[in-house]
Amino acid sequence: MISADCHAGPPTGGYREYLESRYQGRFDEVLGGLKEMRAAAKRRHIGGRLFSEDWEREHSSEQAVAEGGKTGLWDPGRRVAELESDGVVAEVIFPDGQNDNAYPFHPTTGEKDPELQLAGARAHNRWLAELCAAHPERRAGVAVVPVTDIETAVADTRWAKDAGLRGIVIPSIPPDLPHYNHPRYEPIWSICEELGMPVHSHGGPTPEYGELPGAMAVYVTEVSWWTRRVFWHMLWSGVFERHPRLKFVCTEQGSGWIPDVLLHMDSVYEGPMFTQLRRELSVKPSDYWARQCWVGASFMKPFEAERRHAIGVDRIMWGSDYPHMEGTWPFTAQKLHATFGEMPSEEIRPMVGENAARVYGFDRALLDPLAEKVGPRVGEL
Amino acid sequence: MISADCHAGPPTGGYREYLESRYQGRFDEVLGGLKEMRAAAKRRHIGGRLFSEDWEREHSSEQAVAEGGKTGLWDPGRRVAELESDGVVAEVIFPDGQNDNAYPFHPTTGEKDPELQLAGARAHNRWLAELCAAHPERRAGVAVVPVTDIETAVADTRWAKDAGLRGIVIPSIPPDLPHYNHPRYEPIWSICEELGMPVHSHGGPTPEYGELPGAMAVYVTEVSWWTRRVFWHMLWSGVFERHPRLKFVCTEQGSGWIPDVLLHMDSVYEGPMFTQLRRELSVKPSDYWARQCWVGASFMKPFEAERRHAIGVDRIMWGSDYPHMEGTWPFTAQKLHATFGEMPSEEIRPMVGENAARVYGFDRALLDPLAEKVGPRVGEL
Repeated sequence: MISADCHAGPPTGGYREYLESRYQGRFDEVLGGLKEMRAAAKRRHIGGRLFSEDWEREHSSEQAVAEGGKTGLWDPGRRVAELESDGVVAEVIFPDGQNDNAYPFHPTTGEKDPELQLAGARAHNRWLAELCAAHPERRAGVAVVPVTDIETAVADTRWAKDAGLRGIVIPSIPPDLPHYNHPRYEPIWSICEELGMPVHSHGGPTPEYGELPGAMAVYVTEVSWWTRRVFWHMLWSGVFERHPRLKFVCTEQGSGWIPDVLLHMDSVYEGPMFTQLRRELSVKPSDYWARQCWVGASFMKPFEAERRHAIGVDRIMWGSDYPHMEGTWPFTAQKLHATFGEMPSEEIRPMVGENAARVYGFDRALLDPLAEKVGPRVGEL
Repeated sequence: MISADCHAGPPTGGYREYLESRYQGRFDEVLGGLKEMRAAAKRRHIGGRLFSEDWEREHSSEQAVAEGGKTGLWDPGRRVAELESDGVVAEVIFPDGQNDNAYPFHPTTGEKDPELQLAGARAHNRWLAELCAAHPERRAGVAVVPVTDIETAVADTRWAKDAGLRGIVIPSIPPDLPHYNHPRYEPIWSICEELGMPVHSHGGPTPEYGELPGAMAVYVTEVSWWTRRVFWHMLWSGVFERHPRLKFVCTEQGSGWIPDVLLHMDSVYEGPMFTQLRRELSVKPSDYWARQCWVGASFMKPFEAERRHAIGVDRIMWGSDYPHMEGTWPFTAQKLHATFGEMPSEEIRPMVGENAARVYGFDRALLDPLAEKVGPRVGEL
């Protein structure tokens, strides 16, 4: 199995040596405040304290770290062992972004300066390239590419390709910038198409909800939508029309929404009100989806799997979200059984590995023997 | 049949006499610019021109107006005739908000001054109360209640009740104000519960999308979501817990989304991450829905009707959206047949009238004989 959504990052301080030296002073200044800020953020979680604290105690307390828990976030060997024990031989890697492993000047810390955000993203990309280089047959790292300056984004995409990374993730909510239907992003789509680097949106960011009653539950209800928007902003403005070989992947934002959104978009495209769309886009929205888009279906639920034919069995790439607490690790086998248990194996295989192997160019000749050893067999799901 | 979503309003200039005199001068100043603004807005519709112009020619040109077309928006007798010829004997009425019939200082005109917006909303409410008084057995008018000043909103709700109106509609996006999980809105929920006035959210408003490529298609893809949010902001912050007799209606924002949202919200409520929710809310989200919320299901599509059991057959109130061009008028019979054709009559009756009769207090003793005369019979759908 290949997980199309995993996360990695050292404890934030560990990024220091990957930062350009001119940013290290500022980094040292903010590092102290981070711990307090994260503690405050945790307190805002409605009743999340008990669960989250149990999980943290189990996976990240000093004792747990001493025993190996959570160090899989950054330790290459531990990572292989934990993933294998969960049945996963290869993975697509995004930054951590939560807990105490966010990269420097991460937007969730409230940092607004684009220059610092870029410096932090680059530190993560350098660190990630090293992690992936330790087991390149097992790891497809996704580079964080801020979009404030387009020339820089293009250059960083080239750098990522050269460094062995296998895609880029763009901000779900472009910070103080127009959304992705703006022509300014065109050079990013072009370079990613040219280099065969899939473009990702990844769930997580939202506007600030403040501390109003129910805010955390509102966050959980809405979070995926803010990221889903990236897909239709790109599609309606013709990005997939102009870049038919561009690969686009929607990761950790659910998958059950896709059939309804495509149905609605197709009806808009084919309906009488917006005839211009049929002149600008040569095929209907669901055809672009089926041609060049995929979903990184993190901790996919049974109701999502029931909709697999409407989403496309060849479009779904299951992900464990390792090692996040909302993910399936370390209980992946049970959860996969609940999700896929009743399906024919020729439908399960693409969703739990074969699609990801194709999209990210994993070497099946190297992975298949590992999978043979690690399991699970499709029949066991 | 009762349509739970219709629209009414005179041509904007016709509101002048319903405005307090101190606002009439300013109104005269802006009225001239409105026509040009609306023409510009129409040009932004991607390819909408042909269809929209055909429809406008048919329904609102000077000639059409002379023949009676579109005058149903404000002419009480014409309205009865057009609705009856479409099989509808009673209706729930929202403002027009599009075309050339927006009430004075409508937010879609770019007016930002809350005082003027309030004056315009009140002009509409006065006009609407008159329209409804012409055929009170057939018309449940919904008052527009801005929420900038809460005491004013409470007073206007009392006024609306006294004037014979049967509910209030609040802005889908509170302008420069916190969302509806803020405690500031509490007096509005209290007065509506006390007076038995259903609170409505009604689809239409979005943030400004500018004139970027695909913006109109993005608008159509997202518009309902901005209004759907009102439901879960209210629910998660405990509005339905504290006000168990408050009626809430989501109108013209689709209905197919409801099962998935309730499924997700229930899983958040019952899951391990937010245990606090179970202390704050005595029942799960889908139970609040089933107890005190309804959907005004405008031009309901077959795929929505297929989900009627997950939405609740007793929660759905079909609407024609008369006389808007995206609605079912004047082809309601055919469209209803496509949507409800295969269902048992005991399921159709509540959705096309009985539920709305209960929620808005229509007098069945007066309406049933009209429906008997006008048709259609359930068997004809």
